Amino acid sequence: MDKLELNILGCGSAKPSLRHLPSCQVLNVRDNLMMIDCGEGTQLEMCRRRLKLSRLTHIFISHLHGDHCFGLPGLLSTLSLVDKSSSVTVHIFEDGAEQFRKMMDYFCRDRCYELIFDVITREPRLVYDDDAISVNTFRLYHRVPAVGFLFREKPKMRHINPDATQQWNVPQYFYNSLRQGMDFVTESGVVIPNRELTTDADPAISYAYASDTTYNPRVAEAVAGVDWLYHEATYGDESAESARKRYHSTARDAARVAKEAGVKQLILGHYSSRYSDLSPLLTQAQEVFPATRLAREGDCINLTKEVV
Amino acid sequence: MDKLELNILGCGSAKPSLRHLPSCQVLNVRDNLMMIDCGEGTQLEMCRRRLKLSRLTHIFISHLHGDHCFGLPGLLSTLSLVDKSSSVTVHIFEDGAEQFRKMMDYFCRDRCYELIFDVITREPRLVYDDDAISVNTFRLYHRVPAVGFLFREKPKMRHINPDATQQWNVPQYFYNSLRQGMDFVTESGVVIPNRELTTDADPAISYAYASDTTYNPRVAEAVAGVDWLYHEATYGDESAESARKRYHSTARDAARVAKEAGVKQLILGHYSSRYSDLSPLLTQAQEVFPATRLAREGDCINLTKEVV
Repeated sequence: MDKLELNILGCGSAKPSLRHLPSCQVLNVRDNLMMIDCGEGTQLEMCRRRLKLSRLTHIFISHLHGDHCFGLPGLLSTLSLVDKSSSVTVHIFEDGAEQFRKMMDYFCRDRCYELIFDVITREPRLVYDDDAISVNTFRLYHRVPAVGFLFREKPKMRHINPDATQQWNVPQYFYNSLRQGMDFVTESGVVIPNRELTTDADPAISYAYASDTTYNPRVAEAVAGVDWLYHEATYGDESAESARKRYHSTARDAARVAKEAGVKQLILGHYSSRYSDLSPLLTQAQEVFPATRLAREGDCINLTKEVV
Repeated sequence: MDKLELNILGCGSAKPSLRHLPSCQVLNVRDNLMMIDCGEGTQLEMCRRRLKLSRLTHIFISHLHGDHCFGLPGLLSTLSLVDKSSSVTVHIFEDGAEQFRKMMDYFCRDRCYELIFDVITREPRLVYDDDAISVNTFRLYHRVPAVGFLFREKPKMRHINPDATQQWNVPQYFYNSLRQGMDFVTESGVVIPNRELTTDADPAISYAYASDTTYNPRVAEAVAGVDWLYHEATYGDESAESARKRYHSTARDAARVAKEAGVKQLILGHYSSRYSDLSPLLTQAQEVFPATRLAREGDCINLTKEVV
């Protein structure tokens, strides 16, 4: 099974507390590390979680609030102190690209890696694509321009059935064609259907990150049918008004989006520092969408296995 | 005794590790909190150490390397979320003032407190002065312009001897004059010398912060005679060459400065992340200057009491 792990480094909101760290996640896609948001202290958490900075290739910043990006200067500087020889791309709104580029050019001029800023806008677009995964932005509804990120694994290859391939003397050079779904024709002209020689490919998993945003049905449209949805749940029911005012969501809002989108599993996060006990938020969400879990700092979620 | 406490929030060097945090100290001067350097993660340490952000009035940044100032954006933003209604002054080199001002104007435009940037240069000058304390800069010798900070308590008032003042019927209104050292004249014209009515004032304590710098005898001249000296000790003897090359000091260099300056007590810090055991650094320093101690994250040093 190809590795697809979601590491929760921080799932608190803006006001710092000893309960949570500011927003940061690291998606491990077959040992290619892709970061989503980068709150202050992220580099130390990478260190604590033994996530290798040298494997970090892309950083996706959802919006320009400090609790989602103030870890960038430290992290990008430290990349120059570790064995990092390739490039890092920061996908970020224009004002952020400008400010952090200037900052890095001042504080970390002699970088040993290439630092690329890719400017994102509110307009949804493909921001990353390789053989394993694609990343698209989708619009969020916050006080400042904000986007979510939708990670989709590419369709995977079928698995060889070694007993069957041996039985039919399939030559090694044909295995790749088998994995891609082609039938095999023996020397005597017999057609062996692919399904007799292979087993189904692993499902291609999808993961959407939606933080920060107020409730909006268009978010549900954008993430329709994904396997996993991380949706901010800054507040509980009792603070629904604060949520609206500040363009944030309640746990119930998050669950509503998950239900409308028909996702398989919802992860809550971006909790206000006021909550010492998060179980009411979980309960409120599960009333609407049972397949909900709370994100916690330290979580490493295997996205290929844990879909309910 | 008037409170003068030095809190060590971080005493590591640039490369992050799980052993240390980047440079930050908070000097508590009678509950007025003055910060020296502000590495990433400082605001969380303030929280952890229960140092009230609302009492923070001045931040002194020694030089523009990330491990000494990347905590500023987060800290200054969070000040707007706490009960902070007065002002905060950041004493910093010009390029830093410019960059962090811009950053704050973008990320934290609607501040509920006044944010003042006071531009420092390499030229030594008085940067702060009140009834309790003064702060002067002095030059350091690093790869980029850098200064140290010298905190000097003002001479303190003498203590009233209650038995003596009662015996001579000294009226309350004269107590302040007594504390300032004046003699008392009774109604019948007898002069009671001040020393019979009071006891000595507490000593005015001085503290100097010198990080980052290579060894330079001028640093010793600048801090001559201070009670406490914090001096960077990035390396041990075995890395003396690295220290020179990178404009840092060894523990022995720090001790040499302490000895030449005739300070009372030396505190070592700014350790390279390579040292899991700091005792060799302490030993090497103590060979030159016995009254040396290691700074550790979590230290709260009572500067009025612990002078050897």
